[in-house]
Amino acid sequence: MARWEPDARGRLLQAALDLFADQGYEATTAAEIAARAGLTRTTLFRHFADKREVLFQGQSTLVSTATAGVRSAPADASALEVLRCALRALADEHVPAQQEIGRRIDAIVATSPELQERAAAKRASIAAAVADALALRLGDPRPAGVLADLGVRAYYDGFAAWTGPRAGEPLAAVVLEELAALLAALSAALDPADA
Amino acid sequence: MARWEPDARGRLLQAALDLFADQGYEATTAAEIAARAGLTRTTLFRHFADKREVLFQGQSTLVSTATAGVRSAPADASALEVLRCALRALADEHVPAQQEIGRRIDAIVATSPELQERAAAKRASIAAAVADALALRLGDPRPAGVLADLGVRAYYDGFAAWTGPRAGEPLAAVVLEELAALLAALSAALDPADA
Repeated sequence: MARWEPDARGRLLQAALDLFADQGYEATTAAEIAARAGLTRTTLFRHFADKREVLFQGQSTLVSTATAGVRSAPADASALEVLRCALRALADEHVPAQQEIGRRIDAIVATSPELQERAAAKRASIAAAVADALALRLGDPRPAGVLADLGVRAYYDGFAAWTGPRAGEPLAAVVLEELAALLAALSAALDPADA
Repeated sequence: MARWEPDARGRLLQAALDLFADQGYEATTAAEIAARAGLTRTTLFRHFADKREVLFQGQSTLVSTATAGVRSAPADASALEVLRCALRALADEHVPAQQEIGRRIDAIVATSPELQERAAAKRASIAAAVADALALRLGDPRPAGVLADLGVRAYYDGFAAWTGPRAGEPLAAVVLEELAALLAALSAALDPADA
């Protein structure tokens, strides 16, 4: 990033969140976002394909973090422990300042079918990254896909709790607890006699 | 649908598949698709918001079918049996003629990030429909979400097998077998001693 644009991406995100909240996503232009951030339109388009991508700037980092998290697991780790490594890595990408940003992004996404679609693609890309890395590790795409779905659900549901009622706890703990709760719920649903 | 436009949606799909394959998704206009289908541009836009939606016309039916499938399960059905009812209902929406259409849609989606994103949103909408209906049924969103992920993965992976090497089998059988395989793979991954 050029020296005269410190944290251009973060400034563009804050500007976009302000403008989308004030005047709506549809009505806001990339030029307005750039101006609000004290940057040029050209700078915005150097970082992002369009105004929508300003909101989803975390995706590529999360995808590579998920992959790296799976690879970081010890050689003798169980499949579940490998998944936990990926979730810990994803959770460690976030600092509490992102709770407010997460809430604001969610509120804007809720206003736009286009943004909801983009959010579904983001989630799918993280799930695919976890599934692909797990499949390499386990040598079998089936358990990899199912575990990736479980992990990504735990990550998203845990993140939602962390941006809400569980804001005071470490994100990784909330996510891993959610994973355990999902596994217990599945087990009980599949074998009601044990519930 | 008006009498002078029999199967306008199906004709537009075939025209779109032909044109997207011949000249690419980006290069094809809605007007060209309509003309190829022997219809007007106005007719296309009466049915679809844009050329992209022509390819995803099955989504709303699949979403309502998934919901209806869950609701159709007997009152005393287990959670897994309820999920199987939803998958049977989804599978019953398809006839073998759709194998070729499915292959052609997949080939075009693979050429375009925009279409891949839209496809992720379609899958998420079906998963959300199953999850919401199951949550009502089970009274708990956690097992509902996990089972919905499993079911939708079985549906997609089963569908892919059915448009390929398992084209001669009933789709429902392929999907339910995939669901059983996913559950077995998960069980083995979670408890390696049993594998």
